[in-house]
Amino acid sequence: MNALGLIVEYNPFHNGHYYHLTQSIKETNADIVIAVMSGNFLQRGEPAIVSKWDRTKMAIHSGVDLVVELPYAFATQKAETFANGSVSILEALQCQSLCFGSESGDISSFLLANEFLIHNKKQYEELIQHHIKTGVSYPTALTLAFQSLSNGHEILDLSLPNNILGFHYVKSIHQQQAKIKPYTIKRSSAGYHEQDFVSSTIASATSIRKAIFANKDQVANYVPKETVKVMDKYKDQQDLLHNWEYYFHLLKYSIMTMSEEDLLTIYEVEEGLENRIKKNIHSAVSFQDFMERIKTKRYTWTRLQRLCTHLLTKTTKQQMSYIDQSETSPYIRLLGMSSKGQGYLNSIKKQIELPIISKLSTFQHPLLELDIKAAATYNMIFPEPLRSKLLRTEYATPPIRLENN
Amino acid sequence: MNALGLIVEYNPFHNGHYYHLTQSIKETNADIVIAVMSGNFLQRGEPAIVSKWDRTKMAIHSGVDLVVELPYAFATQKAETFANGSVSILEALQCQSLCFGSESGDISSFLLANEFLIHNKKQYEELIQHHIKTGVSYPTALTLAFQSLSNGHEILDLSLPNNILGFHYVKSIHQQQAKIKPYTIKRSSAGYHEQDFVSSTIASATSIRKAIFANKDQVANYVPKETVKVMDKYKDQQDLLHNWEYYFHLLKYSIMTMSEEDLLTIYEVEEGLENRIKKNIHSAVSFQDFMERIKTKRYTWTRLQRLCTHLLTKTTKQQMSYIDQSETSPYIRLLGMSSKGQGYLNSIKKQIELPIISKLSTFQHPLLELDIKAAATYNMIFPEPLRSKLLRTEYATPPIRLENN
Repeated sequence: MNALGLIVEYNPFHNGHYYHLTQSIKETNADIVIAVMSGNFLQRGEPAIVSKWDRTKMAIHSGVDLVVELPYAFATQKAETFANGSVSILEALQCQSLCFGSESGDISSFLLANEFLIHNKKQYEELIQHHIKTGVSYPTALTLAFQSLSNGHEILDLSLPNNILGFHYVKSIHQQQAKIKPYTIKRSSAGYHEQDFVSSTIASATSIRKAIFANKDQVANYVPKETVKVMDKYKDQQDLLHNWEYYFHLLKYSIMTMSEEDLLTIYEVEEGLENRIKKNIHSAVSFQDFMERIKTKRYTWTRLQRLCTHLLTKTTKQQMSYIDQSETSPYIRLLGMSSKGQGYLNSIKKQIELPIISKLSTFQHPLLELDIKAAATYNMIFPEPLRSKLLRTEYATPPIRLENN
Repeated sequence: MNALGLIVEYNPFHNGHYYHLTQSIKETNADIVIAVMSGNFLQRGEPAIVSKWDRTKMAIHSGVDLVVELPYAFATQKAETFANGSVSILEALQCQSLCFGSESGDISSFLLANEFLIHNKKQYEELIQHHIKTGVSYPTALTLAFQSLSNGHEILDLSLPNNILGFHYVKSIHQQQAKIKPYTIKRSSAGYHEQDFVSSTIASATSIRKAIFANKDQVANYVPKETVKVMDKYKDQQDLLHNWEYYFHLLKYSIMTMSEEDLLTIYEVEEGLENRIKKNIHSAVSFQDFMERIKTKRYTWTRLQRLCTHLLTKTTKQQMSYIDQSETSPYIRLLGMSSKGQGYLNSIKKQIELPIISKLSTFQHPLLELDIKAAATYNMIFPEPLRSKLLRTEYATPPIRLENN
């Protein structure tokens, strides 16, 4: 069977995702669709608006056959690590293709950019170091280095967020010598950061989340009816949704009870930041306020949000040390599947080298501990007994079985 | 001037405390009263119903002249350490007497018990070890050892909570070679653990707290009108009071994000307990529920509450290591005073060897860090911006100046 791999967050699943899904199937002639999805915390370092279980339902309802979780250790990372973890899982699941959305829409430009940087590796790295020394953030340094290096060639605009991710998918495939063939589809309208509805059926996830928190009926115009159905239970119950502000008291408590030394053990807390964090937490009255206080030119907003996520989940450098050795996932955790997905999995099961986890109790791994801790933290904002019930769910829930609609 | 020392918690200040205060002044012919008071967390391992600032006001209004804080490292401890810290502060402040409440009411029985145990030290310690091996708690082992050793002598009933504390005060005075003379006054009615009102004007602090949470007007019968005045702002605002249940979400979050290894770094977490804590936190839906799940014959309820307090404030064995070397306080933190108290302090200031802290920014010590962390944790249950305001208060508040009424 021809399996198509997608790398997704579905926060929540909307018409743009549906467009990408159906176009990708057409483009790759796929028989089956596998999505590797971030769990409860996302690449930009924020909690997903609803749980991975609800987002899995949306995905399968809308046509995905198999949803597996990208471990926390890869999901809450810069593009490179995020891509490495995701690609390794899709490769292990024997996907023949990976199709990503991009601003460019031209796969040859990604392949070319990858080739180009392999051939100019040394010069590229020197340029990155040069730009970092000027005090800009790491992503900006990458973009500037690539721009000056490829000046005149017009290979690929790496200042655009989906082009960057796509570039890293292609690079990961190359580095891991994966058999997956990369495809890309031009993203249709709605920029990643758009906050307002701009087209009649497609809107950014950001604007959709904003509308959900404002409890606007308009949302139904921008998401499949399956998403509406799943989101229905949150109507007028916004305290069951998730956003950073709901976690601020836990973040503040966490930081207030840690010494600067303790802070330095946390992943992504670089020398100097511990001081800045400790100094600004006392007076910060909200997450937004705190972020604005610690923001500098040197660190992107996203980078600092990821750091806050690690502070919230108490993820230490030592706990993350696995990925210093290997940037491929050590297991595959199933979140949900259709019967077609189940059939595919059965057919390839014996050839998969990674352990496949249906139930948490059956497998142990330091990175899985992080997933469990992240899930526990994610549910910590609810009152009892709901909180305890959701904590049990994480252990007790078998992969969701649903049919595509 | 003849200074009387008291060791108090005033949670809250009630008629029984007032009775003890006035009787103690009479008994000792004191000119001035100094109270060393637990801060926001108390000896039984629980948060005080209202802040140390409010409790200081009650104390001064009712006749105490100087209130100083017993550091967290001594306040949340077994009787022995609690007594050592308290006595060392009263001695440093040149108190001529210490007067404590007891079930016995006869100071000679305490002196005798102390003498008796010094003379039978070896046998006493062997008996304690013997009883501990049978699986009972440490306090029970002490009581049993003393009972069998003093069998027939009827020296002092060390199974009663105030007798135990009193015994340790006398022992501390002896060990520290303090010049303080101990006195005791028989506690008038209302047992420590009484939950209901039993007399017409004196009730236990437990029953008074219960009535405050039930918002009962009756409380006014059992506390001085100064306490009523301070407590007035909490009327119909019970979420501004403090009890363990309000902290349960923070405790749960804290435990869920710690590994068993991390738990073992926390003060009072003995080998084996880390497992029990971790196993029972998932399903516990309240603090009471959690405590009942982890309770065994081996550990008293109080001991486990103290452990939970250290888990909540993230107080590590390493941070508490100071008291392994010295069980005397390294500083004196002023909480409040009357003009008489101020005058006394000025008159003895130059002879006091310990640093006297009026403002947090003027002094640094590992134990003071713990006080600051405890104060931060204590205020963590409030919404913003109140929480941030109270955090600033801890740094900015100079000692309270009030007159006795």
